[in-house]
Parts: sequence; structure tokens; C-alpha cells
Amino acid sequence: MRIGADYYPEHWGDDVLVQDVCRMKELGVDIVRMAEFAWSRLEPREGEYCFDWLDRAVQLFGEAGIDIVLCTPTCTPPQWMFQCYPQIIQSGADGQPVPIGVRGHRCMNSPVFRNFAEKIIRKMVSHYRDEPHVVAWQIDNELEANHCRCPFCQEAFKKWMEKKYTSVEEINSAYGNIVWSGEYSDMQEVKPPTAAVLQWQNPSLTLDFNRYASDSTVDYVRFQQKIIREIAPDISVTTNNWLCENMPDFYDMFRDLDFVSYDNYPPVTLPEDKETLYSHAFHLDLMRGIKRQNFWIMEELSGALGSWMPMSPTPRPGMLKGYSAQAFAHGADAVLHFRWRTGCSGAEMYWHGILDHSNVPGRRYEEFADLCRWVKQWKEIEGSVVINRVALLYGSDQEYAFKLQHQAEGMYYMEQLKLLHDAFTAIGVGVDIIDEREALEGYDIVLAPNLHITKEAVTKKLYRYVEQGGRLLLTTRSGVKDSFNKCIMASLPTVFAELVGVRVTEYDVIGETTQTIQITDGAWQQAFEQTRELQWNGVDVVVTGSRWCDLLETDTADVLAEYGEEFYKGTPAVTENRYKKGVAYYVGTVLNRSAYISLAKRMAEECGLPYWEDLPLGVEVTKRVRDGKEWLFVFNNTMESKKIRTGECLQPFEMKVLL
Amino acid sequence: MRIGADYYPEHWGDDVLVQDVCRMKELGVDIVRMAEFAWSRLEPREGEYCFDWLDRAVQLFGEAGIDIVLCTPTCTPPQWMFQCYPQIIQSGADGQPVPIGVRGHRCMNSPVFRNFAEKIIRKMVSHYRDEPHVVAWQIDNELEANHCRCPFCQEAFKKWMEKKYTSVEEINSAYGNIVWSGEYSDMQEVKPPTAAVLQWQNPSLTLDFNRYASDSTVDYVRFQQKIIREIAPDISVTTNNWLCENMPDFYDMFRDLDFVSYDNYPPVTLPEDKETLYSHAFHLDLMRGIKRQNFWIMEELSGALGSWMPMSPTPRPGMLKGYSAQAFAHGADAVLHFRWRTGCSGAEMYWHGILDHSNVPGRRYEEFADLCRWVKQWKEIEGSVVINRVALLYGSDQEYAFKLQHQAEGMYYMEQLKLLHDAFTAIGVGVDIIDEREALEGYDIVLAPNLHITKEAVTKKLYRYVEQGGRLLLTTRSGVKDSFNKCIMASLPTVFAELVGVRVTEYDVIGETTQTIQITDGAWQQAFEQTRELQWNGVDVVVTGSRWCDLLETDTADVLAEYGEEFYKGTPAVTENRYKKGVAYYVGTVLNRSAYISLAKRMAEECGLPYWEDLPLGVEVTKRVRDGKEWLFVFNNTMESKKIRTGECLQPFEMKVLL
Amino acid sequence: MRIGADYYPEHWGDDVLVQDVCRMKELGVDIVRMAEFAWSRLEPREGEYCFDWLDRAVQLFGEAGIDIVLCTPTCTPPQWMFQCYPQIIQSGADGQPVPIGVRGHRCMNSPVFRNFAEKIIRKMVSHYRDEPHVVAWQIDNELEANHCRCPFCQEAFKKWMEKKYTSVEEINSAYGNIVWSGEYSDMQEVKPPTAAVLQWQNPSLTLDFNRYASDSTVDYVRFQQKIIREIAPDISVTTNNWLCENMPDFYDMFRDLDFVSYDNYPPVTLPEDKETLYSHAFHLDLMRGIKRQNFWIMEELSGALGSWMPMSPTPRPGMLKGYSAQAFAHGADAVLHFRWRTGCSGAEMYWHGILDHSNVPGRRYEEFADLCRWVKQWKEIEGSVVINRVALLYGSDQEYAFKLQHQAEGMYYMEQLKLLHDAFTAIGVGVDIIDEREALEGYDIVLAPNLHITKEAVTKKLYRYVEQGGRLLLTTRSGVKDSFNKCIMASLPTVFAELVGVRVTEYDVIGETTQTIQITDGAWQQAFEQTRELQWNGVDVVVTGSRWCDLLETDTADVLAEYGEEFYKGTPAVTENRYKKGVAYYVGTVLNRSAYISLAKRMAEECGLPYWEDLPLGVEVTKRVRDGKEWLFVFNNTMESKKIRTGECLQPFEMKVLL
Repeated sequence: MRIGADYYPEHWGDDVLVQDVCRMKELGVDIVRMAEFAWSRLEPREGEYCFDWLDRAVQLFGEAGIDIVLCTPTCTPPQWMFQCYPQIIQSGADGQPVPIGVRGHRCMNSPVFRNFAEKIIRKMVSHYRDEPHVVAWQIDNELEANHCRCPFCQEAFKKWMEKKYTSVEEINSAYGNIVWSGEYSDMQEVKPPTAAVLQWQNPSLTLDFNRYASDSTVDYVRFQQKIIREIAPDISVTTNNWLCENMPDFYDMFRDLDFVSYDNYPPVTLPEDKETLYSHAFHLDLMRGIKRQNFWIMEELSGALGSWMPMSPTPRPGMLKGYSAQAFAHGADAVLHFRWRTGCSGAEMYWHGILDHSNVPGRRYEEFADLCRWVKQWKEIEGSVVINRVALLYGSDQEYAFKLQHQAEGMYYMEQLKLLHDAFTAIGVGVDIIDEREALEGYDIVLAPNLHITKEAVTKKLYRYVEQGGRLLLTTRSGVKDSFNKCIMASLPTVFAELVGVRVTEYDVIGETTQTIQITDGAWQQAFEQTRELQWNGVDVVVTGSRWCDLLETDTADVLAEYGEEFYKGTPAVTENRYKKGVAYYVGTVLNRSAYISLAKRMAEECGLPYWEDLPLGVEVTKRVRDGKEWLFVFNNTMESKKIRTGECLQPFEMKVLL
Repeated sequence: MRIGADYYPEHWGDDVLVQDVCRMKELGVDIVRMAEFAWSRLEPREGEYCFDWLDRAVQLFGEAGIDIVLCTPTCTPPQWMFQCYPQIIQSGADGQPVPIGVRGHRCMNSPVFRNFAEKIIRKMVSHYRDEPHVVAWQIDNELEANHCRCPFCQEAFKKWMEKKYTSVEEINSAYGNIVWSGEYSDMQEVKPPTAAVLQWQNPSLTLDFNRYASDSTVDYVRFQQKIIREIAPDISVTTNNWLCENMPDFYDMFRDLDFVSYDNYPPVTLPEDKETLYSHAFHLDLMRGIKRQNFWIMEELSGALGSWMPMSPTPRPGMLKGYSAQAFAHGADAVLHFRWRTGCSGAEMYWHGILDHSNVPGRRYEEFADLCRWVKQWKEIEGSVVINRVALLYGSDQEYAFKLQHQAEGMYYMEQLKLLHDAFTAIGVGVDIIDEREALEGYDIVLAPNLHITKEAVTKKLYRYVEQGGRLLLTTRSGVKDSFNKCIMASLPTVFAELVGVRVTEYDVIGETTQTIQITDGAWQQAFEQTRELQWNGVDVVVTGSRWCDLLETDTADVLAEYGEEFYKGTPAVTENRYKKGVAYYVGTVLNRSAYISLAKRMAEECGLPYWEDLPLGVEVTKRVRDGKEWLFVFNNTMESKKIRTGECLQPFEMKVLL
Repeated sequence: MRIGADYYPEHWGDDVLVQDVCRMKELGVDIVRMAEFAWSRLEPREGEYCFDWLDRAVQLFGEAGIDIVLCTPTCTPPQWMFQCYPQIIQSGADGQPVPIGVRGHRCMNSPVFRNFAEKIIRKMVSHYRDEPHVVAWQIDNELEANHCRCPFCQEAFKKWMEKKYTSVEEINSAYGNIVWSGEYSDMQEVKPPTAAVLQWQNPSLTLDFNRYASDSTVDYVRFQQKIIREIAPDISVTTNNWLCENMPDFYDMFRDLDFVSYDNYPPVTLPEDKETLYSHAFHLDLMRGIKRQNFWIMEELSGALGSWMPMSPTPRPGMLKGYSAQAFAHGADAVLHFRWRTGCSGAEMYWHGILDHSNVPGRRYEEFADLCRWVKQWKEIEGSVVINRVALLYGSDQEYAFKLQHQAEGMYYMEQLKLLHDAFTAIGVGVDIIDEREALEGYDIVLAPNLHITKEAVTKKLYRYVEQGGRLLLTTRSGVKDSFNKCIMASLPTVFAELVGVRVTEYDVIGETTQTIQITDGAWQQAFEQTRELQWNGVDVVVTGSRWCDLLETDTADVLAEYGEEFYKGTPAVTENRYKKGVAYYVGTVLNRSAYISLAKRMAEECGLPYWEDLPLGVEVTKRVRDGKEWLFVFNNTMESKKIRTGECLQPFEMKVLL
């Protein structure tokens, strides 16, 4: 376990740098990240490189025994490049160049830009290749899927399409282009979907464009990665992932990189409503699942957030230390705080670091110091990993499809995943979040909500998993589409109907309103009452459905719950189907938090998975193992102190490690 | 009475087509509409026509005895046309071509587009001229007023202005252009109002531009109609009307067409608040009034709506059948459901038809089957018509003017009409909604809210109507403007002041807040109390005004109600004026629903018009007559069962026909 | 004291003009303003001038003894100019010409436009130079800071930058451009910040651009002023100021003009919540402070507002007279009502004048007549001035900086000033609002909230002021930035820390939520209880902080109040520091209205400033003095009648003048 900070030597004079290195050494900081925005200082004029200021920082950190991650500075080309080579500017959905002045406005496909990028990367990697303290390279910064519509990208999209489809006739058929006379008669007509509201466009085109945009960013990462490895074959290469509206497929993006990094900004204010989800554990498990191995936090919350909007409140006492500890518990091997000190200029000047503008160590600095001590104390867990028996499947195609066609008011793909992740987390059962294309060996339970876009390989794998004794949970909006985002002409859940043993006869899209759900299954009902008693403190919660209601007709399945209102009162809502050696559950609506938690208990119970029936809500239990040794991490992610069954009491945001 | 469905043979293979024809025949479907979006299949490449797939469908439907409406496919030119002739693309308010990819993006004025349109129409009409089952042509699809600002349309607007006005001096004077130095010195300066917020532009210009936009669409309809009639002089021609933000004057649009069609999507969820209006009967009466004759429903609600937004709930049991029956009751001669089956591709894939994606007949299919049987049962009403004694005047100029200058928070022209329509509907009195330019013979009561833009002919007609014994109701915001949308310099309601016998001394724009209204007229007060008792179930409703308060001073009128609050407490709010042989009412505010219902009772009572004093709210009574025979339709447009005075009980959305 | 109206002879025929002059004379109107939008009538075609219609009006008003303010008509160039010289059209943030058709769309920097402007101004001023009744010129109309991005303005900005900075290196350092590689390598890269969200741009650039935009408008005013003075050296020159989102620095703008004019539109509906501020006295004091002398109201509320949005309610009885009297009480020497009559055409036709469209004198006309009589009654106060002992500092840089970086939800610079202005107004103590650059001699108390952008001269002046015995109040967000809008690396409030004797150890941005504040100072607590009793009628108000909480550590200061909640409960929130001969207060949060009022009492008490402890909330007391004579104005700015300690009772909006 290593602790670090993100640092910008180019922003400060030498005095400050010397003081900072000294303070970091004193605290026991292991690692710093530098240079991801420094291109204008590294190449102040075309072809004129200047590394001395970075050499000085590398030297000082090295002398202090602090390791270094260096970055390719390609996120922010210098102003001279935009001025002299305007063709490198990204275009928006309307085909016009975007206004520059912030970051990230380069077109990743532009040959001119790539040429400059290649040169600076070659120079930098060659220059620092032999520095013993430079331990990894970060590619660019917080990459998004490439939705640029510049002339070059328009051509790139057409080429992508020509590679995927052999003729316009094939596209017309795959897309159902005949609707509204959208048929192409020539490849010249194939263009990225234009401006305005994307949901007015053919959903097959918009999904393919999202796939292209992801592939385009993956290609850009590969381009940089190859240059780095050519010069420094043994160094680790990563990029810092974040979760934005516009994500590339991160399984693809990290395929050829060494480890996953993530920029982690957990909430500084927690919701008061118990039914509202907020745990950041979900994101940590998602990151660990990308390569199914430990990961880094490349940026971690250090103070109030700001810049793009009014500032947030300052993180509450315990948050800085606790959220970092939570990351370690979920498989982080390093946590770097963003940022060591708060910037005094630029648009991000109110994104607060460990040190405030004042440069006077304060409350958060002391908490960071405390975190550093804590990390040293648990150095021994280095090399340990997280092993779970429940898998939750994520698919970028599913997420794209849900975003492109917003099906029901308040219904989001990620929300479905979070509800299921939360349910098992709430009973102390660890969850791996993995790509839907991954193998399922070793899992007792697989959760696969909203399998909207179907792919034969995934479908077959799931049948096989259940046939061989697995327990699979599917939900509403599964089996809706073929891989081109066209609806399948069969009773929902179409390809999964046999597996779950139910058919959807009709659906009612209820959005933000709710439906009463009656549990008809004894074991689940008992688990629900127990949950209410032990975890909800007897609060009078009920089971509800929202967003969407599938009206089910069972073929081979048993009914676990039914609807309690409307013309479909008494119709099955949740079912269970014994299929060969396994069991397939189907949830035809979006259940609320307490309902899912109790369902998780029932499922865990059935397959003998150990769980905590009385874990206080908001307290998380995680295990890391190595060589037969186990560390149990217990984290109180709430604003109140919590007592657990071992008798121990945790303060807000406190992490305890039990051996 | 005929029942039908909208159908897209081009979307499906032959197997599906054969099955569909077979099912429709079995159900007794009378008619289908086809081909309004099929241009890319009818002319896959420039000048290359291909009708065989449509021939096949026409043949199969014909053989099954099912009639056919064919459409000109001009709403969706093929992609090759946009690619090769980009000048046919519409321009937005900023003068730039709009992003294509959806439907309706052709400029109706473009000579290149018109040339292609003429060719395909000639080809199609010639080809199907002799098909006995092809009974009508639909022109294009859901036309809007043409607000295109392409270079050609800019010129077209200038020509329209040159035709209306002889000189820039005449325009300057008519528009009051001197304000803010807006005077033209040359016709070259005359341009459509540009982008941004239209209410910042001269209201005379924006109103004329709306009139031009309407005329432009009417011209486009005439262009198509002439081609069709030239080739097939005896066939019926229509276009499918809808109500959008941007409507052409539909009286003009349908003048030379044979009958009105309407796309009817009544609400799938009803409001809970009794003061909220929702009846779709208003739209049906509006459509019947366009040509003062029976009409068709060309598209009718069949399932959950979707595509542009999260999906709606599924229509409740009874809605499909009930809403269709309601249309028949109000004068529809045919109802075609949109659509037979739900599309599996394209942006509209979640706009649900009678059959779901699954192709498995379900609840709604059964309800449609039931509707088909019901229609057969009442075939005899064919040829009957609806005759009413109350007229409600609509004027497209009034609607444009209110939209262009939003006068008071929450105040919409259509709302005023709906309130008055609802008041008489609620007491079982049928209302004709007709063009303000129409003759008023045969009406006992004429309702003319918001006669904002005055025209001499209309004004004179209304005076004559009252002089000869008619009863006329006018409201606030009448007489405000001359025909150029300039304010008239005289006490409001200016040209109507003598008729109503009141003058407005000042007004108070209260928006969404309310004013207490005190009824001072005994008969109205009694009717209000009766309404509360019999229709509102004794619920404690009060009389309120909102949006706008005219402070009235009576000349010859009697006061029916006065304001109860503010500095104008005690000032007249509603008056009645005996003028020659008739009576003219003036409502100086926007009354609430219960107030208008009781006022309607008082007015009906006075002129001996039969009405239902105890009709349950939400139950509608309509009469169709032919050759002295009468059919009384009673429809329960609520979610609860309702008992009427005949003792009969109607289930939600049930229609009973009493002889 | 003079009373007047804004008049548009070009809108009406001669009959109306003659009637209007006659009516105004009868009422005793002293002055009219004309011609600010009449360019198209003054120069109907290029180079063809036509003044006869204006001559006629000038002649008639002159004969009636009514004085005249004439305007340069440069706000609205004629259509022929836009048509023939499109380069005079302003460009938006995207660099594209804005759609014309409303007013104000000329680029103030355009040489072509300036050339036309100079010609018309020369013609007009020469033509009317010798008219005895023409007493002043108004330049243009309601000017905004010039944010045009046309090519000419882009160049102008670059020149402004070249004048301020000697090299790109100097800019890079001043701006901290290294962040995100924003460094310039050549002056050609220096451009106005482009479209999209300005807060995404470097805050140093956006602040400088705002300063440039202000300077650009100031230059335009100077350009016009010089022409006028060259021809008519002795005439008064002004421009009509308003408060928009986009204001130039009005101290700069009026520096070379003779007096300040203001367009005054006080609220027609008052808020019901007592904690909500609404007094328009703030704006009047702000205007008086611009040149620290009496001012004019060039446009004053006369009826319902309209045009850009739904119309407002009509002004309540008493408002027209009362708000004008309020303006006189705060230092206005003339009040001109906008407008004499309501326009019948153009986009502003619903912005109501004294006469409605009807041309029939009504309630508001009578109230205006009453006002005219009242003004005659108090003619003797002419030449008297307002002298106060409390100053409130305003800085345009502060306002720009707060708008460019919205720091906390709900936190606005102007709100901070209004809270403090309100606190002293509520206890009958007059406040001067003056430029932060002004001298502070003669003030017992200086209020300087949010001194965000620091400037050495201001800082030194404030230290000196306190050293010499002054009482200064500073608040949160002071001392944050250097003059380039970069954060200062020192404990907040940085340069003011010694003066206030506290340091901010951390801050918590709480936005719209609130914090309990515990007053720990006895005198303040007593004042608060008295305020609750005497002014709040015993209503149960409490002291709260919102928006922002500075966590304070005292060095030399005493604690007046502390936080009552959260992890910083008990931490100082408000402090007082005796510094040399004076006192410096620091308020670390945004207090609520009742808290500030009681704090004002405590401060007034301490320095022996007379105040009204029992002035009813909403009643304002103002004093004008001349030659030892005093007039005490008491104004009831509420909807209820109020009794004051003299025993007199004031009706809503009534003004009493006590000698």
C-alpha cells in the first residue's frame, strides 16, 4: 500500500518545491504524479523542448526517496499549436470547432496533433527512461470517448463502418433504415449522427457511433502506449479513468495497459434518506473488475470541490482518511491525493488540495498525515487481493443503449447495478463487478440486470452457467434488442425466456411513481422482516416497484412476489426458475433498497454464502487475502458512530482492520 | 363507421405481411393506410422507381376486402436526395441548414424538392389510379407551418409581403416600425424575423410571418392536391392534421381537400384535480368544425407512447375501445389505429401499436378486436351527422398572436377555449368549434373568447348576431389589436365596447395567482350551488379568477359578478348586456371550471336549451342524427364507474349508445 | 425638484402631440425626454436629415414652458445602415453577428458606425444648440459593457492588452497561464474568451476582458460627449444608467459627464417573507454615490411592465407617487416617468405608461397628477443634498469577480451589499454607497463586504481609516485575490488579517443551507432581542449564517458570535478587533437580515450615531439639508399602514415630509 499526491512543480517557484518535497518526505509520502498538463512548459515553442524544471523536481523527489509517475501532457496542447494548426481543434456535434481555452480540446485523430504528440512523448520517455524513481507513465488525462466531428473524424467513422459492414445494403438491413426513408444508397451518405437530440436518430446508428467513439479513444491509447513501450519496454503504463457521461469501454481501453487507475471523488455530503444509495464502494469494485486485479487511485478527494460550479462543502472530519482506507480495502495498491496544494490560478483554483491556498497546514493536512501513518502500519497487505463469490455484470453496450434511449423517467442503467451491488454490500458479501464478456467460473451468484443488447456468446454463457448449478438474477429490460439495437420479435425476455421460465405479456412504464409489491415467498418475506428489524431499526419500510412493471406470465417459474395495484394487481412481478442444476431469478420491476437487501439475504442463504444479517446500514466489510492470511476491513461510511456484532464501535468514516 | 390501422409493409417480410392481412381480415378491419414514409423504397435511386413491394400489399389487402389510403411519401425524401441536392434541406431560424436524420427536413418551397415530389406523386397516382380498393390519398404527413429560412424561403417571404403591401411606407405605417428605428427604406430590408426570442421582434412582423408560414404550407398542399386530382379526379384527398406548436391555419389547409383527418392521442393518465381539464372531446369537435362535416381519425392511440422521451404508461383497460368510440360519437366516420404493429427499428420503436414487438396478441389486441365487433354493430350510423346549437369560435390569428406575445403567466389561448367547451360539455350540451370567419346561423349561443385581433367582418357579424337575438359571450383580451397586431387607441374592449356595454378602466395581470370572485346574480349563484351539489359532490369549491383581471365600468350592462379582493374589490368582473334583441356577456377574467359550468347552465336555462344538470363530471353525451333517427352516445371518460340519470352505470371508458 | 415624462413625438400624429403638450402643461410637468430611438426618422436615408417633426415638438413644449432633454439616437441605427453596412452589427460570444431586429445591436467600436454616429450627433447638437428649453443631452440609451467579438473588437481587446502588459511573459505570469498549458507564446494568441461557459476559462483573462469591455463602453461615451461639448460647451450631458447583468464601471462612465441618470423600476409586488430584501432605496443610494451628488431619474415606473415576458401586475395605488417621492428623498433632483403614453406598436407595447393604450386618463394618471402637485409643494428643497455618516463600498471588480466565479450556491455580491445597506436603513441611518476607491473622510462607519480583489491603495486606505479611529466592517471572501484575480498565498483574509486580528483556518461552503449562530456578545444579544421585540413584533427569529462559513482563529480580536453546529461548533464566526484608534469587525459568514439589523444597532450605539430603534420594518427615513435647513422624509414602503414614534400614521407607499 502506497500513499501519494498529485503535484505541479511548474506552478510554483523553487522555494515552494523544496518545502513541499521536504514536507512530503516528513509525512512519508511514497509517490507523486507530475506533468500531465505541462506541455507549454515542456515545449514552449514548436520543436523547442525544455525539461530542466522537471529534471529538478524529479531529482529532488528522487533524493527524498519518493517515486514518480510521469504523464504524457497530450491533454493540453500549447496555445501556439492551436494558433498555428487550427485543424487539431475538436469539432462539436454541429461540425464546428469547439471554443478552446480549457483543456481537452484536441482531436485525438488529427494526424498533425498525433505527430506533435508522438514527438513530445518520444522526447520525454527517452529523457526519463533511466530515472530509477520514475516508476510509471500515465497516458493523457481523464479520457473520454472521441465524439469529435471534424472532417478527419467524419472520415474515420466512415472507415470504421466500412470495416464492420460490407455494403450499404447490409447496414440498411442491420439498422432497419427503411423507417422514415433512412436507407443509404451509397457509403458517402454514412455520417456521424448530427447535432440536436440523439434520441431522434436511428438507435442503431447512434449505438454504432458510440462504439466507434470508444474504439477511437482506445486506438489513441494504443498509439501512445506503443511509443512508450518501444522506448521503455519495462515500465508500467496506465491512464487515469473517471466516470463521465461519455465513457469509452474501459475493458477495451485498459486491455494493453498494466494497471487501472481511477480518479476517486466520493460524496462530501451524505443523503439523509435511507432508500438513497451513495456508497462509493461500487466504483471501487467496478475499477478492480476492469482487469480483475488490484488498481490505483490516481486522484483522491482532498478538499472542497470547485471551479465548474459553486464550491462544495469541505470534507467532514474522517473523510480524507476513511475514503482512502476504503479504496485500499477494495483493492487499491496506491492512493494519490489530488492535489498536494490548491492552485492559485486557472479555472480550477477552487478544487482544493491537502494544503489550502494559504500554504498553512490545517485540519485536512493533519488528517492526511494521520492517513500516512495508518498506511505504513498496514504495509504488509501489499500483494494481497480481494476474492469474492458474487459477480455483477456490466456492459458498455448496455450503458450506451440506455443513455441513447431513456426508457422510463428516473430509470438509469447504473442505478440498477448500484441497487444490486448495494444489496450484497449491505449484508457484508463482497461483489466483483466484471465485464459481461468475462468468464463466470468461481461465482456462486451472478447478477445481470438490464441485459438489453443481446449477444449470442453472453447468452450461451449464462445458460451454461445456470445449467451447471449457478444462480443468476436477471431483471426487466433484458433480451429487448439484437446486437444492432433493433427490437427482437419475440415475447420478452426473448432469448432468456426459457432460462427464467416467464414471459412478459405487457409492460407498464410508471416512471417516478411507485407500485406496491406483495412478497408471496415465505423465506423472502422473513428476510424482509428481519432486515427491517435488524438493519432498518424497525422503520416502517414497504416493498415497492418503480420505473417499469413487466406483467409476467410464468411458464416453469415460481412466483416470489406479485403486483399489489392497478389493473394488473396479482400479476407476478418477481419469479424464480429452477433450470437444470441452477436457478434463474427474474425481477420484473425496479425494487427498492430494502427489498433488494432482503432478496440478497434469501439468495445468500440458499447457496450457503456467509453473510452478516445485522450489519448496520452504511457499514462495509471487505476482505483482502494473501498466502492464506486474511485482513478484514470494516468501514463506517455514515455520519454516526456504529456498533458491529464483534462489539466494536466505529466512529464516522472510521476504518478498522480485523485480523 | 369504419375501423382500420396504419401499416408499413416495407418494414416486414412477406410472411409477416400475409399473417397481418389474415389477422386483420379475421378481426374485420375495413381500411389501412400505407406508404407515407416509404420514398427510399419507392425510388431507391434517382429516377428509379420500384412499386412491386407496395403492389403486393395492395393486392393482398384488396383480396381481403380491405380498403387502402395511400400517401404521398414527401415527408421523408431519401438520403440520396439530401446528399446530392443539399439545397432541399430546411433552414432554421438562424438561416443554417438543420441537421437531417429524422423526418420532415425538406424545404417545402425548394424547386428542386418540388420537382422530385411531383415526379413521385405522378408515378404513384398513375400507378394506383385504377386500383378499386385505393379509396383516398393522404398528402405528406403531419404538416407544420413552413418556418424555413433558406434563401429561397427568404425570397418567398419578401414576395408575400410585396403582394400584401404596396410599399415600404405602407408596411412602416401598418407595423408602427418607427419604434426603435425599425422603419424599412427599401424592400431589400424585409426579412423573416431572425433567431433568438421572437417576442423581442416587432409583433406585426412576427404575426405576418406566421401568416406567411401558414400560407406557404397551404400552397404546398395545393401543389400536391392539384397533381393528384389531375391524374385521379375522383379520388378523395386529405392530409393528416395534428396539433403542434406551429400549426398552419387548418381552415385554409383543408379548403380544397375532401375531408379532414386527425391524429388522435388522448391522455393515458387522467389528472386527479377536478379543476384540471383533460377531455379530448375538444379536439374532436375542433376537427369536425374545420369543414363543418364528419372527419376521419387517421392515427389513433394503440399503446404506450415513446421515442422522443421516456415512454408513457400503457393505456388503461377500456381506453383503446373507449377513445375510438368517443371519436365516432363526435363525428368520425373512420378510425385508423396507429399502428398495427410496433416498429422494431428506427427512432419511433417505442411508439407502441396494437401488436407489441413480440408479435403475440395481448390485452390491447383483444380490446381492439372487441372494438371491431362494436363498430360492426353500429354500422347503421354511417351518414349520420352531429348538429349542435352552441358555437365556439376559433381563429388562427388569435392563437398566433397569443403565442407571439405571452401576456400573462399561465394564460394560453387554447385554455380559454377549452374552459368554455368544457363548461357546456359538462352539462351535456354539444358544442361546434368553428372558424371565427364562419356564418353563425342556427346557433342559440356563440362563445368567442379572446377576440384579440379584430377584423371588421367578424366584428360586424357578431353585432348582427346579437342584434338579431343571439347570445354572445366575450372575454378579456378582446378588441385589443387591429388586424396588423397593433393596439387600438380606445377603451377596451374597443370595437366591442358598445356591444357588451362595459369599458375596461385598467387591468391587473395576476398570472398564476387567484382572485376571489363574488357572484352577484341570483340565477347564476343558484346554478353554482346546484353544480356543487349535483356534479361536484358537495366539494367545497369557490369561484375564482386568475391570469388577468379587467377592472370594468358598466355603461349599459348589468353586473353578474365582482372582484372580492385587492384595491378593486367590488369592481365588476362579469357582466351581461341586453343589446337589441340579444344578449352579450363579458367575462373580464379567467374563471375556474366550476364557475364556467354554472354560468353555462344559467345561459342554457335562459334560452331554453336542454341540458343535463346532474351529468357526472367526465361523462360526455353526444348525439348523431340521420333521417330523423337519433343515436345518443354516453361516454364515461373517467377512471371510476359512473351512474347517469337513466339509471345506467358506465364502467371506466365505457361508451353506451342509447336510441 | 422637477417632474417629467419620456415622450415619443415620432410615434403619434400632430393631434395627439398637441393634446399631450396641453395635458402636461395642465398637470405642471417640468420636463420631457425625446428622440433616443428616432434615428430612422431623423435620417431616413443615408445623409438625408429630417428634423422638422422634432422641431415641432420642441417648439410646442417650449411654448408650454416645458424643458427638454434630447438624446443621441445611436442605440438604434436605421435598417438601411444594417443592410448596407453589415460590419456595424455586434458579434456574440461565438464571433457570429447577432440577429438584429431589436435595439442595441450596433458595435460601439465599429469605425463605420462611429462615423455615422458622429455625423448625426453633430447635426442634432448644432441644430438645437440655441433652443433655450433644451437643457441637457442624453448619450445613447441604457449602455452595457461592450462584449462584442467582431473582428474589430477582437483587435481592440488585443490593443488593450498590449497597453496593459509589456509582453506575453508578463501576461503568463500575471494570469498563471501555465495551468493547463494556457501560456501565450505570441500576442497573436491573445483573444477574448470564447463562447460556452466563462467559468471554464482562466479567471484572470475573464476579469481583464470584463475590464476591457467596461473601458470600451466608457470610451464610447467619451467619444459622444466630446462631440456634444465641442458644439455646445455649456450644456449638461448625461446617460441613463441601469443595472443589468453586464454593467460597465459606472464611476468611470460618469466621470466626465455632468450628472447621473438612472432608470428606476421598483418592484410592483412586495415579498411576504420578512427576511427577504426588496427596498429600492439601495439602488437610489448607489446612484447618488456615483458622483457623490444628486442625480436624476430618467425613467420611472408608470404602469405594468411587459414585452419581454408575461406582463407584471399593475402598480398598486400609491406606488407611482410614493416611489417617485422616495427617489426625491434619496437625492433625485428630477424624476421623469417612463412613459407618458403606452406604445401601440413595437415589441415594448405592453410596457405601460401613465396613459394606457386607450388614451383615457385613469387611476394612474390621477396619481401622477397628485404627484405633480406634491412636487410643486416641495420645490424649496431644490439644491438640498443628502449627507450621511455611514459608507458602504462598492467595487465593479468585486462584482465582476463574483459573477465570473460563482463561489457558493445563493451567494451574490450585490446581496451582501444589500444586507448591510438594509441593516442601517432599517434603523433610520442613512448610507452612502460609494466607489471603493473613494476617500473615507467624514464617515463614522465604513462597510466593506467581500473585498475579494485586493488593491494596495484600497488596502492601505482602510488600514489608515481604522488607525485614525474609524469603524470598519469586513466580511468573508475578503483578501482572496490579487488584482489579477489570482489567489494570494497567505492565511485569509491575507492583507486584512492584521487589521481584523483573525485568521481563517478553513472554510465550509454551505450554500443555501443554514448554520445556527450563537451570539456571545452581550450588547449585540441585547440589540437582537430588542429588534425582535420592537421591529419583528416578537416573531421568533433566530440568528443564522448561510452560503459560506469561515472557521476563524483569533489573534488579537474578540469573539462576538460563534457557530452552533457541525464539527466547527464553538468556532468564532463574527469578531471585533480594536486596532490603533479604531475598530475592525469581521463577519465570517452571511448573516440573516435580523442579525445584521441588530449588529447595526450595536455599531451605531458604540459610536454615538443617532438611530431609530423602533422604526417599523419597511419604513424609511431620509434627510435632505440645505443652508442649515433640514427636511426629514418618512416613507412607508410596505402594503400596510404603519405608525411611527412621532405618532403619525403612514398609509402604504405614503411619504411624509417632516420639518
